[in-house]
Amino acid sequence: MAYDGSGFHGWAAQEGLRTVEGVLAGVLATLMREPARLTVAGRTDAGVHARGNVVHVDVPRHAFESMPGRSDASPEQALRRRMMALLARASEGPRGSSDVVVSRVSVAPEGFDARFSALGRVYSYRVCDAPERFDPLRRGDVLWLDSRLDLEAMNEAAALLVGEHDFLSFCKPREGATTIRELQALHAQRTDDGIVEIRAQADAFCHSMVRTLVGSLLRVGSGRRPAHWPARRLARARRDGEVVVAPAHPLTLEAVLYPQSARELAERARHTRAVRALPATLSAPGMD
Amino acid sequence: MAYDGSGFHGWAAQEGLRTVEGVLAGVLATLMREPARLTVAGRTDAGVHARGNVVHVDVPRHAFESMPGRSDASPEQALRRRMMALLARASEGPRGSSDVVVSRVSVAPEGFDARFSALGRVYSYRVCDAPERFDPLRRGDVLWLDSRLDLEAMNEAAALLVGEHDFLSFCKPREGATTIRELQALHAQRTDDGIVEIRAQADAFCHSMVRTLVGSLLRVGSGRRPAHWPARRLARARRDGEVVVAPAHPLTLEAVLYPQSARELAERARHTRAVRALPATLSAPGMD
Repeated sequence: MAYDGSGFHGWAAQEGLRTVEGVLAGVLATLMREPARLTVAGRTDAGVHARGNVVHVDVPRHAFESMPGRSDASPEQALRRRMMALLARASEGPRGSSDVVVSRVSVAPEGFDARFSALGRVYSYRVCDAPERFDPLRRGDVLWLDSRLDLEAMNEAAALLVGEHDFLSFCKPREGATTIRELQALHAQRTDDGIVEIRAQADAFCHSMVRTLVGSLLRVGSGRRPAHWPARRLARARRDGEVVVAPAHPLTLEAVLYPQSARELAERARHTRAVRALPATLSAPGMD
Repeated sequence: MAYDGSGFHGWAAQEGLRTVEGVLAGVLATLMREPARLTVAGRTDAGVHARGNVVHVDVPRHAFESMPGRSDASPEQALRRRMMALLARASEGPRGSSDVVVSRVSVAPEGFDARFSALGRVYSYRVCDAPERFDPLRRGDVLWLDSRLDLEAMNEAAALLVGEHDFLSFCKPREGATTIRELQALHAQRTDDGIVEIRAQADAFCHSMVRTLVGSLLRVGSGRRPAHWPARRLARARRDGEVVVAPAHPLTLEAVLYPQSARELAERARHTRAVRALPATLSAPGMD
């Protein structure tokens, strides 16, 4: 699923606030005629967007297969269409559109868990560093910088952070939760329209970890810190006054990666649950 | 200049309403310390965006060259930066951004007129016809369609409209104004991200002409009308019940085309003024 995070107080349901989980669960409950409990791959923070987030939900087979208004569509297509119609009504902006999109509905393979089966999450962070190319139509998910970024220095810094490390210096840790993560990729590149796109991929991210990685790379790219500075902070493995958290609005969850086979999906879920099951982590886990 | 049209009641200043002209003129008046009278290439309607609109304004040389806060920048750079700072304050959305951008400021060559020197205007109209690719982050300037468009049929229809014609069947005429225009190009293509982009170029467009051309092409693309239908309407040269005006929000003025040399700029301005100077057109001209 995809959403524009600007109209939401993040993913997680909160009493009295508009959240993606709250809106989706409401729509599903209406259609399935019973409360829906969602499990999501990426519990994004306030203001963060998604193009490829993944949710699973257990629904009663009869409610799914006998949905009213199905006509000749498959139950999956019918559910997607009906959810989209309700989501458009619950959204502001141009008529016929909505700020949450259910891109695809499918019956999950046995053993699938949207959160714990995932092998990796891919985030993008978009920056425009050329004032003559600032595009007001893209200001909702692009950071505007007045000075040119040095991508070579940023990528030198990024390469030193890739691998399995304790990312304590780059996140807001939760009580008792591990901050060891495998950063699988971190790279900045300039796209055709002059936008600098930073891509980060990890097995999972701790709370505010992508924005802190990006904040550090931007310091390097603007020449205010040397290329080895982020790696030095990583090695210290502690929270300090040098944390730089980049703004949330240019951050988008682009994709969630899963194993190919049903057997691997279930195995991966068992493995992830075991690794994260340090005291208190199951009840108050870090951001994925 | 560029703007996100969703927060404006169109280009033209209107008492008590937020318009692009009103905001820009206010900012310029503050910086130049006298009222600013703007001439614009494309007087876009409510909800229509721009990436490459062009404005000229006569300013006193001393105010321009002795702007406070100039430091070592050129007067052009200083004016752009100061306008951007004021525009960001007059705008909603992420901090540091704004819904109007002055992309570049330059001293115009002798004889230049932003409106009358123009040889052509280029508009884009963006449509997503694949529900699994609806992107909430782009919903501000993309039309969402539930069924696949036939681009071949659309381009067959478009080719029959190109050329100099009386476009009365495709616009809201203004009293006494000519509706003869040269449609220089009209073409639909699918971009990498699956978006269908319709491009329209003319010497100038009448009021609501691009949206009516697009509305007709969409009828053809969705199979509701045959490819020769728009050309038949064109040949009738009259307003009738078959006018289909597509929504405004996916429309963007992408570029304005000018002659290369100063001599041609002035000549073109003289020529355009003469052609458009039918009774009443100078006081109530059609949309450019």
